Amino acid sequence: MPPRKYTVAVAGATGVVGGTVRAILEERDFPVGELKLLASARSAGRTLSFKGAEVEVQELGPGSFDGVDLVFFAAGGSVSTEYAPQAVAAGATVIDKSSVFRQDPGVPLVVPEVNAAHLAANTGLIATPNCSTIQMVVALKPIYDAAGIERVVVSTYQAVSGSGQGGIAALNAQARQWAAGEPVEQQFYPHQIAFNVLPHIDTFLPTGSTKEEQKMVDETVKIFGDPDLKVTATCVRVPVFGAHSEAVNVQTRTKLSAAEAKELLAAAPGVVVVDDPAGLQYPMPLPAEGEDPVYVGRIREDVTIANGLDMWVVSDNLRKGAALNAVQIAEELIARALL
Amino acid sequence: MPPRKYTVAVAGATGVVGGTVRAILEERDFPVGELKLLASARSAGRTLSFKGAEVEVQELGPGSFDGVDLVFFAAGGSVSTEYAPQAVAAGATVIDKSSVFRQDPGVPLVVPEVNAAHLAANTGLIATPNCSTIQMVVALKPIYDAAGIERVVVSTYQAVSGSGQGGIAALNAQARQWAAGEPVEQQFYPHQIAFNVLPHIDTFLPTGSTKEEQKMVDETVKIFGDPDLKVTATCVRVPVFGAHSEAVNVQTRTKLSAAEAKELLAAAPGVVVVDDPAGLQYPMPLPAEGEDPVYVGRIREDVTIANGLDMWVVSDNLRKGAALNAVQIAEELIARALL
Repeated sequence: MPPRKYTVAVAGATGVVGGTVRAILEERDFPVGELKLLASARSAGRTLSFKGAEVEVQELGPGSFDGVDLVFFAAGGSVSTEYAPQAVAAGATVIDKSSVFRQDPGVPLVVPEVNAAHLAANTGLIATPNCSTIQMVVALKPIYDAAGIERVVVSTYQAVSGSGQGGIAALNAQARQWAAGEPVEQQFYPHQIAFNVLPHIDTFLPTGSTKEEQKMVDETVKIFGDPDLKVTATCVRVPVFGAHSEAVNVQTRTKLSAAEAKELLAAAPGVVVVDDPAGLQYPMPLPAEGEDPVYVGRIREDVTIANGLDMWVVSDNLRKGAALNAVQIAEELIARALL
Repeated sequence: MPPRKYTVAVAGATGVVGGTVRAILEERDFPVGELKLLASARSAGRTLSFKGAEVEVQELGPGSFDGVDLVFFAAGGSVSTEYAPQAVAAGATVIDKSSVFRQDPGVPLVVPEVNAAHLAANTGLIATPNCSTIQMVVALKPIYDAAGIERVVVSTYQAVSGSGQGGIAALNAQARQWAAGEPVEQQFYPHQIAFNVLPHIDTFLPTGSTKEEQKMVDETVKIFGDPDLKVTATCVRVPVFGAHSEAVNVQTRTKLSAAEAKELLAAAPGVVVVDDPAGLQYPMPLPAEGEDPVYVGRIREDVTIANGLDMWVVSDNLRKGAALNAVQIAEELIARALL
């Protein structure tokens, strides 16, 4: 019997994450029977290529999910809110990139390297975490398993692609205006992003933290299933196009040396250790763009506490931080006969 | 009696810090009688303007300090090592920007807002700290005085001007090459800095930390005179021209609310609080370039520990991080009748 193929839809197919989902489905030879590309009316009629064929983009609407096995939602919170339940009702399994359902107790929030087991409890809707959370938890997982984690202090250096095409366009335009000696125009972000740094991602909460920072706290707890795992985050946008970096300070429950952490990380799924100070090799966002792994380096003991580690974590936020993680969830569903 | 004027020398006068010292001496109307601009043989004979006059750059050499009251050294470690003791022997007071003497127990390491009292013990040589340390300790000072500080976890976002003209030229050239669609050439840094982030400033130590990171640890302890003050740092170069940013997580000894910290910071010398999330106002490096204050914002309670605070600290690393701090030290010496 030939392996089963699936009718797969991508909602938000013309966005940067939707486009990356399509590319990764092709790269990984995901068993796609039919591919439906869904977007707003504005984009309907455009064609996008998939495995050598041109696929016409259809307007996302009430009938979009008939006969669909699997839908990747990458069109933002309001589209997921409206259509993800409709897709589930139509019998499809939904993998949702938005933040809408992530804290719903009935919705597994999954990073396959960390908590693939949570997929068993899915009832048709699975959420994929925020980009900044995903790469951090992949790097924390082997440390958590070996020594437990008490507290994490994380500072991020996040790329503009995390904001979608508007963020990429803003950095692109502003850097070109600067180089041409023209006035740099405000666009998309509330302040110039070229040659600047903005300690502001997503909206502010009454606590003074941003939603992005709170996501890193809440999502990490849910993914590890450990309400005692404490995270404090400062999320910062930097003028980089395509990968997020994170300075991660970890307080483990039991002692783990930097050498032990390095060894565990080197063996961890999804992780590539780049940590050769003498050779000036460490993870950086530019070479990580377009790559799948979570790169970890600068692994050092933090001697200010009994069980402290510092590390530096970099990954392409459109791939592992978004599209790749979503496709890996789908692959896990198949491997576990859940799709 | 008219106020005394001083014969002032700047060693490294043609560098970015030396140039900023000259500008700040003029801006602040420092009581300069004669100004001597000293540099390597290569730059000798150039003229630089000071208070409307053109001053010829002289080659730094054995006789440079005869009759000089005060020398600002901003020419790097090897020049300070060779010439700072000569300047002191010639009777001048030296304010040294290099890292050479900072940990010398006989040399005060001073940020006037924090430990001006240490100047009393000087024997002719005073060190000014690393740029990343200075802005952090200015922001920590009111918190330290009110509640004590147990531990700091800091991640930096450092501008290329901290590397001097070579760093500025590299970002400039690479961003222009990128905009022109030309290949981006490696220069100055070991990796591309435009649209990239390098978790590497200064050289690596056997511990896995960089010297820059270790400076933040050691200098903070010395400036506060508190060996129990613990700092762990990750120092990162970002594609920004002229101001450093820092995500600073603070564990105080006694409880201090975010509101209390904000109030203390607003009243602290050298600090300007920019913390209006609703108005999307927070410190950023681009508007801080060319300005004197240490800007502090994103002041939040860190609820993962009993006495936790998060804040975001930005300052022009050539001004408060280097030249301004040096000139302020000189002003303090005069105010305390130590010069």
